[in-house]
Amino acid sequence: MLTLYQRTDCPFCWKVRLALQELSIAHDIIETQLGEKHPEVVRHSPTGNVPVLVDGNVVIWESSVMLDYLDAQYSLGRLIASEPSQQARVRTLHAYSDKCVGPALRDLVFEKRSKLESECDLGVIQSSELKWLACQAYLEEQLTPQGFFGPEFGAADCALAARCGVAEAYGAGVSDKYPVLRDWFNQARLRSSWSAAYPQQFIQAGPK
Amino acid sequence: MLTLYQRTDCPFCWKVRLALQELSIAHDIIETQLGEKHPEVVRHSPTGNVPVLVDGNVVIWESSVMLDYLDAQYSLGRLIASEPSQQARVRTLHAYSDKCVGPALRDLVFEKRSKLESECDLGVIQSSELKWLACQAYLEEQLTPQGFFGPEFGAADCALAARCGVAEAYGAGVSDKYPVLRDWFNQARLRSSWSAAYPQQFIQAGPK
Repeated sequence: MLTLYQRTDCPFCWKVRLALQELSIAHDIIETQLGEKHPEVVRHSPTGNVPVLVDGNVVIWESSVMLDYLDAQYSLGRLIASEPSQQARVRTLHAYSDKCVGPALRDLVFEKRSKLESECDLGVIQSSELKWLACQAYLEEQLTPQGFFGPEFGAADCALAARCGVAEAYGAGVSDKYPVLRDWFNQARLRSSWSAAYPQQFIQAGPK
Repeated sequence: MLTLYQRTDCPFCWKVRLALQELSIAHDIIETQLGEKHPEVVRHSPTGNVPVLVDGNVVIWESSVMLDYLDAQYSLGRLIASEPSQQARVRTLHAYSDKCVGPALRDLVFEKRSKLESECDLGVIQSSELKWLACQAYLEEQLTPQGFFGPEFGAADCALAARCGVAEAYGAGVSDKYPVLRDWFNQARLRSSWSAAYPQQFIQAGPK
């Protein structure tokens, strides 16, 4: 049985949950808290951060590597595609989610998560929202004719759906300016993986 | 013919050059300068940073994805291994190079690269050296019985050899405290890929 050490609202963890659900892989979840250094996580990961995935002797502390591993071990091409140029496309868009969308949304999330609404710095939030809009403009152009970020709903889709989910939970869902991206996100939300992986705390908190 | 847009002393570019040499893949190099936003790089990459690899219609702006692509397209397992748990190991150690060793060495390199020796902040340099020593302690434990970071000299070895090369050029080569790592680096320097990919400017400048 696989074990995922994770924090439910962390987008890096969320994408791994989506991938596990997409591939119907049975797994245990060990929940950690924001700021917690869980002893097993510290033991397994040189960064001490979640997610950490353990599958027998295999220990992975880098989320993009987890999706590559799940694909190679359990699905052979379902998440990453099978043709090298398509794999490169999926992995590059997965990297875009981690390296571009994540930093764009960071200030927005940190402001709204850690402060009362009256104490939030609106300038910081607006700047973050503008960066996120620029990311959406880029992503609008990247969807394939099949309607995904690869030949089917795969690693890049899991990563970007989790980012869009975080953005939406903090009041910055996909803009009407980007109808192709918005349609993709609406379709992602209809998948059974979405409800299974959705952070319970966002349901309890309601929209911000 | 593949084209690599790059900067010679950038460790992300250096590892791609090492991988291209290891696989004997013919390629063109387009040299860019520190701080330059080369128009083709800006056109191809949403970050505007090097390296960017172009192979016909395939454009990749994320260095770890380049090594995955070169492996899948040109070598089938030589750089990334073929068994999923070994692939996960190679990719995780490659991520360690990018996400842990890089940040550890950053201050050391930035201080020495951008300032006269008399103007360098020794406290900043020492702090960076300590982080780099901690990375070396971790890496000392990660080498396989074959003497590499995977079943053979692959993606993680290319990435980490480039990092060690940068460290050495700035006066912080692999420490005698870590003889297994030091031996691995000495062996890496004997490979034909090493001299072919080594930054000319480090030879001209001599040790710092």
